[in-house]
Amino acid sequence: MALIVQKYGGTSVGSLERIKAVADKVAQVRRQGHQLVVVVSAMAGETNRLFKLAEQLSDAPNPRETDVLVATGEQVSAALLAIRLRALGYPTVSFLAYQLKILTDACHGQARIKSVECDRIIHALSEGNIAVVAGYQGINEKGDITTLGRGASDLTAVALAAVLKASACEIYTDVDGVYTADPHICPKARRLERISYDEMLEMAGLGAKVLQLRSVELARRYRVPLVVRSSFDDASEGTWVGEEDTSMEDVLVSGVTLDNNQSKITINGVADRPGLAARIFGPIAEAGIVVDMIIQNASADGRTDMTFTVARNDLRRALDQIRLVADEIGAGGISFEDQVAKVSIVGVGMRTHAGVAARMFQVLAKEGINIEMIATSEIKISVVVNSKYGELAMRALHDAFLGQLAADAV
Amino acid sequence: MALIVQKYGGTSVGSLERIKAVADKVAQVRRQGHQLVVVVSAMAGETNRLFKLAEQLSDAPNPRETDVLVATGEQVSAALLAIRLRALGYPTVSFLAYQLKILTDACHGQARIKSVECDRIIHALSEGNIAVVAGYQGINEKGDITTLGRGASDLTAVALAAVLKASACEIYTDVDGVYTADPHICPKARRLERISYDEMLEMAGLGAKVLQLRSVELARRYRVPLVVRSSFDDASEGTWVGEEDTSMEDVLVSGVTLDNNQSKITINGVADRPGLAARIFGPIAEAGIVVDMIIQNASADGRTDMTFTVARNDLRRALDQIRLVADEIGAGGISFEDQVAKVSIVGVGMRTHAGVAARMFQVLAKEGINIEMIATSEIKISVVVNSKYGELAMRALHDAFLGQLAADAV
Repeated sequence: MALIVQKYGGTSVGSLERIKAVADKVAQVRRQGHQLVVVVSAMAGETNRLFKLAEQLSDAPNPRETDVLVATGEQVSAALLAIRLRALGYPTVSFLAYQLKILTDACHGQARIKSVECDRIIHALSEGNIAVVAGYQGINEKGDITTLGRGASDLTAVALAAVLKASACEIYTDVDGVYTADPHICPKARRLERISYDEMLEMAGLGAKVLQLRSVELARRYRVPLVVRSSFDDASEGTWVGEEDTSMEDVLVSGVTLDNNQSKITINGVADRPGLAARIFGPIAEAGIVVDMIIQNASADGRTDMTFTVARNDLRRALDQIRLVADEIGAGGISFEDQVAKVSIVGVGMRTHAGVAARMFQVLAKEGINIEMIATSEIKISVVVNSKYGELAMRALHDAFLGQLAADAV
Repeated sequence: MALIVQKYGGTSVGSLERIKAVADKVAQVRRQGHQLVVVVSAMAGETNRLFKLAEQLSDAPNPRETDVLVATGEQVSAALLAIRLRALGYPTVSFLAYQLKILTDACHGQARIKSVECDRIIHALSEGNIAVVAGYQGINEKGDITTLGRGASDLTAVALAAVLKASACEIYTDVDGVYTADPHICPKARRLERISYDEMLEMAGLGAKVLQLRSVELARRYRVPLVVRSSFDDASEGTWVGEEDTSMEDVLVSGVTLDNNQSKITINGVADRPGLAARIFGPIAEAGIVVDMIIQNASADGRTDMTFTVARNDLRRALDQIRLVADEIGAGGISFEDQVAKVSIVGVGMRTHAGVAARMFQVLAKEGINIEMIATSEIKISVVVNSKYGELAMRALHDAFLGQLAADAV
């Protein structure tokens, strides 16, 4: 008998028929004798519907009250799944964040989990119940509802799995695992059977939407074995996300990612002296704009160029900030490109194999694609290219690094 | 500066436009310097929608989980109203049952309030906030969500008004007060300016739907001044429900009510000995059927006839129970009439005036209406008549007892 945490996403519980199907799947695992904690998202579309109601009442809906509003989505799903499981004859109890004291900070809409008390779940399981938990929500010190950010029902599931020391945390979604690349762009992309936490982190950070970034971080920290599976395809084994092992190093590159919604800003002729980077990026951070890659060229005549990327829909606001700062610091000028793409390759094999970057640049050169920026980490190499070459770059890199394996799989 | 509790029903918050209108009304009172606690129902239709979801997943949805489900309706309304008030610039905080420790018994779907802690509301008001509270819900000793029964947002409002010692509890609904009779049946019906708790209790018990019975009981016990008003008609003063005073006794009859969904069962030839009533009504009560009027004729030959009324849609189940019992106790036979109506007159003036019953019977006789059963209380007289005479009886009684006043009002 194992203790398993399962999480079903919005499309998996998107209709009453699908909730019935989820209940059948849960019941099947329960019949095998396992203890089950099931975390659910809001029914697909519900969270957006609720946000839209708020937006029709206020230009900037109060964050505390918006959390009270949108948390109802998961509450409805949890109750409906529990009702169905009860109807099938399985003792089931649903729990909301306040009942499990899923304590978070007070950052409404993007709260971080500080602690979880699972006493009520442990008690419910010991009495033979299935526990169903509303994902995505917590409470702050005052006892007010907070939400954990988009996609954060994954986080609820991983946090519960960590505290309960579950033998696995199964994330059921509308795809059957983690792919070497987005199959919509790379027809040769294939499902990975296993991937390390570090690789998954890089891929989630790079825009692979299958798992929420923070839940992978949490899973890594508490060594929670994660598996991503399809709710709709029982045949597929999904993708296991776990500790890195030596066999993983044989694979040079595990995945290729593309983020086609980037833009690039360059500040020319910046005096190369301490504190200027803070002067430049401080106001941007305060405006809530996330800066991704930052490159500073080697200084020659005491002046340097600083280039960085932001999401395309933050470009205008970022430029507003930068123009103010550029005057203050006496920069030479500002240029920007609003249509750039970031293409990355990820793989723990890079740690032990040299020459991966060189090969990546060769592949792109062969396609005639100019590289505008380069950034590397221990297990990742990202390049920024003109947006129109994004998909071509992705396919070329996939063919080069993953083509052989893809052919094997076919 | 007064502390006022307001409650807005489902139609009053039935759309975003109406929520905006409620926010405007609340803001207006706030600008007058009053402290405000606003209790809201679910948006019209929402509670039914949620119940229907549950019913599609289970023939008998688990009551605990159904409460988790349907409580979201009020949560959404409370959050939306708070968002709107914030957008208008009024500091506002919403509260759910668990945050106010609205402690109830464990009777899901029909829970009774045991205690309320208003510390968070008092604190919020002292900081200049408007408090918005989700009606209809509580928590039991375990901290699980309970609901208080249909129409019970009134109860939440009255309970809060009692604990907070509010100067008034204003119930905003889709009618502009309590009427002497249902205006759909009695065109001459008029709004009462004032009515006593006792009269309101009888009228609520007799089917006047404007106020929930238990909230009137609670208001009477804690002497909470209640006023029923229309959300849509600012001109009307509504109806005040309060303590009886001597001027009320001048009015013989305050209202006429009609319940046209009754049926009547008679058990003939019952041996007139102790314990038989319990034998008859025990199984009916166990089947969850509410028996309204019970009449036992004076015993002549040691045998008696027992007649009682039940709601029409309980008739079949009541007969099933009664047939079993009738055989056991050797009754002479069973007869029933499925189309009867109960017509009642209510008024505290009856306490001090004789002859009201006699006059009531004369009025009905003049219309050729046969009285099948009679039951009286200190301030109420009810008669059962054939259903087809129900509306006629109501109009005739209204004309006789309230016609003069109605004419005055015109």
